[in-house]
Amino acid sequence: MNLSKRINEMQASPIRKLVPLAIEAKARGIKVYHLNIGQPDIKTPQVFFDAIKNHKDKVVGYALSPGDPNLIQAIRRFFERDGIHFDSDEIVITNGGSEAIMFAMQAICDPGDEVLIPEPFYTNYNSFLKETGVKIVPITTMATNGFHLPSSNEIESLITPKTKAILFSNPGNPTGTVLTWDELERLKEVALKYDLFLISDEVYRKLVFDHEITHSLGSLKGIDNNAIIIESVSKRYSTCGARIGSIQSKNKELMHQVVKLAQARLSVSTLDQIGATALYDLDDSYIDSIRMEYEKRRDIVISELSQIPNIKFETPKGAFYIIITLPVNDAENFVKWMLTDFELNKETVMLAPAEDFYANKNLGKRQVRIAYVLESTQLKKAMIVFKEGIQKYIQKRKND
Amino acid sequence: MNLSKRINEMQASPIRKLVPLAIEAKARGIKVYHLNIGQPDIKTPQVFFDAIKNHKDKVVGYALSPGDPNLIQAIRRFFERDGIHFDSDEIVITNGGSEAIMFAMQAICDPGDEVLIPEPFYTNYNSFLKETGVKIVPITTMATNGFHLPSSNEIESLITPKTKAILFSNPGNPTGTVLTWDELERLKEVALKYDLFLISDEVYRKLVFDHEITHSLGSLKGIDNNAIIIESVSKRYSTCGARIGSIQSKNKELMHQVVKLAQARLSVSTLDQIGATALYDLDDSYIDSIRMEYEKRRDIVISELSQIPNIKFETPKGAFYIIITLPVNDAENFVKWMLTDFELNKETVMLAPAEDFYANKNLGKRQVRIAYVLESTQLKKAMIVFKEGIQKYIQKRKND
Repeated sequence: MNLSKRINEMQASPIRKLVPLAIEAKARGIKVYHLNIGQPDIKTPQVFFDAIKNHKDKVVGYALSPGDPNLIQAIRRFFERDGIHFDSDEIVITNGGSEAIMFAMQAICDPGDEVLIPEPFYTNYNSFLKETGVKIVPITTMATNGFHLPSSNEIESLITPKTKAILFSNPGNPTGTVLTWDELERLKEVALKYDLFLISDEVYRKLVFDHEITHSLGSLKGIDNNAIIIESVSKRYSTCGARIGSIQSKNKELMHQVVKLAQARLSVSTLDQIGATALYDLDDSYIDSIRMEYEKRRDIVISELSQIPNIKFETPKGAFYIIITLPVNDAENFVKWMLTDFELNKETVMLAPAEDFYANKNLGKRQVRIAYVLESTQLKKAMIVFKEGIQKYIQKRKND
Repeated sequence: MNLSKRINEMQASPIRKLVPLAIEAKARGIKVYHLNIGQPDIKTPQVFFDAIKNHKDKVVGYALSPGDPNLIQAIRRFFERDGIHFDSDEIVITNGGSEAIMFAMQAICDPGDEVLIPEPFYTNYNSFLKETGVKIVPITTMATNGFHLPSSNEIESLITPKTKAILFSNPGNPTGTVLTWDELERLKEVALKYDLFLISDEVYRKLVFDHEITHSLGSLKGIDNNAIIIESVSKRYSTCGARIGSIQSKNKELMHQVVKLAQARLSVSTLDQIGATALYDLDDSYIDSIRMEYEKRRDIVISELSQIPNIKFETPKGAFYIIITLPVNDAENFVKWMLTDFELNKETVMLAPAEDFYANKNLGKRQVRIAYVLESTQLKKAMIVFKEGIQKYIQKRKND
C-alpha cells in the first residue's frame, strides 16, 4: 500500500518532535519548564464559559457554513473599534487560524504556485503550503536587523510569474517583530505592482509592548482587493483549544469562493463559536491587561538574558516569542542536551530549536525560540535554569 | 486578481443552493418543512452538556494533535463492544467526519489519482476530492436494485493504475442502503486483488431498521492494511454542531502519516472532545431508542409515499434518507416550484434534488432525497403537504 507523495513530503511538527525527550526527563523526576510552545497559561476569560453554559438550545446543530452570524457581528465590532470596516459577507469563521490560512492557499493558489514568506516563519506554514502544493519562497530577514523586512528591490527580485501572494505574521512568530507602517506601505506597493495578495496573519495583534501599535493590514487604504487578514481567539484570549479563527477580505469574489470551502466541511463548532462571540465583545481593558502581563514577562526574559555572556538577541516588540542566537554550532543539540543531560535542582527547560522556522535551515542553526508563556515566578525560575544550562554547556564543550 | 483553478472548479453546496427560495417562502408567511438536510431534531444527550459544564480547567488549551486520549479510549470501547479492536494509535480525532475523509484523501492520493465511489453519493465527497485533486470514478447503482452494488466484474472494469481506493458510506447517504456482508466481502476481494484502500464512511452506523445489522468494515478479517473507517458523533448522537469525527485504521504507517496532517492544524476543539467522550460511553439502550425513533419515522414516510400514485422508491434499511423517483422530467424544478408556487394551508416542504448526488447527473434527474429528521407529527404533516404538492404539480403539467 503506497501512500501519497505529498504526505511523505510533509514534515512532522518540529516543535513537537522533541516531546519524547521531555517525557523521559519527567519520568526521571525532572521538572520541565515548557518555553517551547505557544500555549499560554493565562486563564480563559470567564465570559467564554458562561456564554456556553447559558446557551439553551437542546440540539447541538450545525452552525451556518460561513459562521455563526452573532460571532461574525462581534468580529465586525472588534475591527470597527480600530476604524476597520468589514461587511458581514467579508468574514468567514474557520477552525482556528490554521484553516483560515488553508482556505486562503486553496482559493488563490494552484499546485506549483509560489508564495513569499519572510523567514524565520511559523513552522506550520510549511505544512499548509505542502498540503496545498504551494512552494514557499523565503524573504530572508536577519536577527541583526530585528527581523525587519529587506528592501523592496530585494523582495521584488524573488517574484516570478508563479508568485501569488506574500504571507506574513504581524506581530511575528517566532520573532516578536512588529512591522512598521512604512513596511506595510512597502508591501502594499509591491502587491499592487505585481498584482499579489497580501495575507496578514494577525493572531498576535494587540499583544504589543512599549506603546507600539500593530497596524492591521485592514488599516491600509487602496488594497481592498489584495488584502486577506487571518484572525484567531487562540492567543489574545487564551483559548487555543476553542479552535476559532476567521478569514477576512474585502475581495468579494474571494470570499464567495471561500464559502464553498466552508460549505464542504459543513460548519465550525457551534458551542465554541458562542463562547468566542463573548470574547470578541470584551472591551479593551481586558486586552490591555493581557498585553501588560506579556510585557512584564518579556522584561523578565530580557533582564535574565542580558546577564548571559555571548548570546545575541533583539528586544521583541510583540507576540510572546524571542529568538536568541547562542554561542553553539547546533542549537538543537543544546536543546536535546538540556532534556537528556542537564538539571538544576531537578529542573530543566525545553526550548524550540529555530532552524525549522527557516526555509534556509542553516540560518537558524545557532538559534532557539523562547515562548514566554509562563507566569512571572515560574518564568524567572525557568530563565535561571536556562542561564545555568547554556553556561554549563559552553564550558563542557570547551573541556571536551 | 485571479483565483485558483481548483476553487473555481468546486461546486457550491447543492443541498444549500436552494436555501434562498426557502427564505423567500418564509418571508411570505409560509411554513417550510425542511426534509432537505440531515440535521436531526432529536435532543443532544444531556451527558454531552454535563461533561462540558463539569470540566474545571481554567485554560481552554490545545488538545493533543491526534486527539484527547480520553475520547480515543471511549471510541476504542465503542468499537470493542462490537468485537472490533483498535490500538490507541490507530485512531485520530478529526473536525467531523469531513476532515477524516480529507485526511484519508491527502494521505493516500496524489493529484490525478482516482477513487471509486458508488453513486448516488454524499455530495460533499465531490468537494473533498476536488480540493485534493482526486478524480471520482462512479460505480453506478440503481434504484430498482435498492442501490446495492453491481457485480465485482463491473467494479473491476473501472479500476486503472491510478485507482487508489473505494470510498462508500454504509448505511448510505442519500440512499439509506445497508451493504450486506456478502457485498463487503466482495469489496474486500477487489481491494486485495488490486491493492486498494477501502474507506468505509460509517457515520450512520447502528441507525438500521428491521433487525438489520450494519457491519463495520472493522469486522472483516484479513484487510487490516487496506481498511479505513470514518466515524462521527454528528448523526448517531444528534450533535452535528460538535464537529467531532475520527479516522480509524490498523495500517500503522497510514496513521503515522495522518498524525502529520493533524499536527499541521494543531488540534480539535477541546470542549467538544470532552462532550463527545461522554457520548461514546452511552450504552446501547440510547442507540436503540434513536434507532427505533428513526424506524418509526421511516415507516411514516413509507406509509404516506405508498398512497401516491406513479412514484417509485425502495424501503431503506438504514440512515434517515430515502430516494424517490418522481413522475417528472426535472425534479429540481419541482423542488423549486414547491418553494415558489405551492402551499397547502400556508405550508410547504423543501426536498433535496437528487441529481447532485450523482457523478452522472442524468441518472438523478427525476429523483429527490427526503431526510426524515422531523418528529412524527411534523413529519406526517410534511408528507401530506408533499403528497398534495406532487399531485398538483403533475396535474398542472398535464393542463399546461
